[in-house]
Amino acid sequence: MPLLVTGSIGIDTVKTPYGVSENCLGGSAVYFSMAAGFFSPVRLVGVIGSDCPFDLAKVFADRNVDLTGLEVRQQSKTFRWVGSYYSTMNEAITEKTELNVLDEAPPTVPDAYKDSKFVFLANTAPALQHQLLEQIDKPAFVAADTMNCWIHSHRGDLETLLKRIDCLILNDDEARMLAGTSNLVRAGKKVLDMGPAVVVIKKGESGSIAFSAADEIFILPGYPAAEVKDPTGAGDSFAGGFMGYLAENNKTDFETLKTAIAYGTVVASFTIADFSLAGLSSISRTDIDSRLETLRKLTQF
Amino acid sequence: MPLLVTGSIGIDTVKTPYGVSENCLGGSAVYFSMAAGFFSPVRLVGVIGSDCPFDLAKVFADRNVDLTGLEVRQQSKTFRWVGSYYSTMNEAITEKTELNVLDEAPPTVPDAYKDSKFVFLANTAPALQHQLLEQIDKPAFVAADTMNCWIHSHRGDLETLLKRIDCLILNDDEARMLAGTSNLVRAGKKVLDMGPAVVVIKKGESGSIAFSAADEIFILPGYPAAEVKDPTGAGDSFAGGFMGYLAENNKTDFETLKTAIAYGTVVASFTIADFSLAGLSSISRTDIDSRLETLRKLTQF
Repeated sequence: MPLLVTGSIGIDTVKTPYGVSENCLGGSAVYFSMAAGFFSPVRLVGVIGSDCPFDLAKVFADRNVDLTGLEVRQQSKTFRWVGSYYSTMNEAITEKTELNVLDEAPPTVPDAYKDSKFVFLANTAPALQHQLLEQIDKPAFVAADTMNCWIHSHRGDLETLLKRIDCLILNDDEARMLAGTSNLVRAGKKVLDMGPAVVVIKKGESGSIAFSAADEIFILPGYPAAEVKDPTGAGDSFAGGFMGYLAENNKTDFETLKTAIAYGTVVASFTIADFSLAGLSSISRTDIDSRLETLRKLTQF
Repeated sequence: MPLLVTGSIGIDTVKTPYGVSENCLGGSAVYFSMAAGFFSPVRLVGVIGSDCPFDLAKVFADRNVDLTGLEVRQQSKTFRWVGSYYSTMNEAITEKTELNVLDEAPPTVPDAYKDSKFVFLANTAPALQHQLLEQIDKPAFVAADTMNCWIHSHRGDLETLLKRIDCLILNDDEARMLAGTSNLVRAGKKVLDMGPAVVVIKKGESGSIAFSAADEIFILPGYPAAEVKDPTGAGDSFAGGFMGYLAENNKTDFETLKTAIAYGTVVASFTIADFSLAGLSSISRTDIDSRLETLRKLTQF
């Protein structure tokens, strides 16, 4: 099943204890597509400016990613982000953000994409997520990401969105903030009450916990990575592996969701092992499957 | 197999968002014994003052706990601790500590206990842990807990201790501090290099990760508890469930250690559901076994 993603394409500068990666390719739609492409055809919807130094057709060659939905605006500049990671590297400190083209009208979903059944709305203003979702005919499973600033300042739009999507993927602090409770289990259940049938809460290196409206729970630790060079894109790679596996199997029952979460965890563990896309571009599906079996072995008793 | 524990017996006052528990029974040896007693006979070594308001014989009646090693010092006062938990309740803020009897000579291990094969040295000065360990003839499996102040200020004693024990149980921040690295996988392996054959790193609500000198790893999330009233004693209950299961089975191979960690996780989840010992004293082994199966189901994919 083709999987549609809307999200950012950016020029990132990232500093970690392992070094600096200047002006490298980043953005939620980029990490998501690279991760999801291991599982399912991906349809990318995103926009860049004329200054974008990357040849995305080359980056995504043989990667199962359709770029029909990539819009290049000649009068605009590409989104830029500068961030640093310290100590345990669980959280990025944003040093600079230039929204540029992300501050303009959202891209248009091409007609050929309108029949997409699996949709991922990467983190952006909930009003834009609405606009993008409205352009798709009859999606079967829509997941979205969000972040603290939308929870805080665009709560109305977000609450409406939650009633229209099937799955919300967010991190632990965001879940606590959205639900207004510090207990993560109660937070997960409260977010379910807001609309989505599935809530996946990411906990950085500590893995994730998922809740379904049918009262099912799944908890999985993070993959024990001895080397974390650059955590950028971990969350979007997780979402890519997760949604990619669902789209590949065209199923969204809880057993399939569990395996999808495990795949998301594994794909993210490859992302963080190197800067930018280097961790993902050097592996194959066989590497992913093999690490999934390792993760299974490491967590069973 | 009888399991010996050395540790504190205290009078705790604990404040959490759920209320205040004043002058309740606490201490590492108390939580450990209550937890381990579900699995194996426990031999408690500890000391209290004449002011101790608790009838420990009554507390531990029918609990599989031998109190021959309980010393009451008529001229001394019992250890007291006042602490608070806020927000996510992952960490206690110590408001007041009165070491009292814990600042005196350590208790004596009774002759009848000297043949103990399984030993847990709860958190105290490493020099005292040495003194206590020296009183046991030929233990088969010794585990110890430690904390930041000993890692920081008594590192020499601690390093010597690590060469004499089989297993160190500590939390994530302590492991990072001891190993001098922020990556938990590297930290675990570095601590193994210091001596113990097994290192178990606790991560609060996020579960635990264990490493063996034979390069085995096991990771388990925390039990998803919707209600955490008082996290006091979670770590010592974890250690009690863990060591109790090993002693019950008289085995310490990695497969047994994995199940022991799962039992420790489950027992701790009962402890934190209520104040002081209320969570542990209201359950049976059947409740523990049943929750273990739930945890298995929640984590498998």
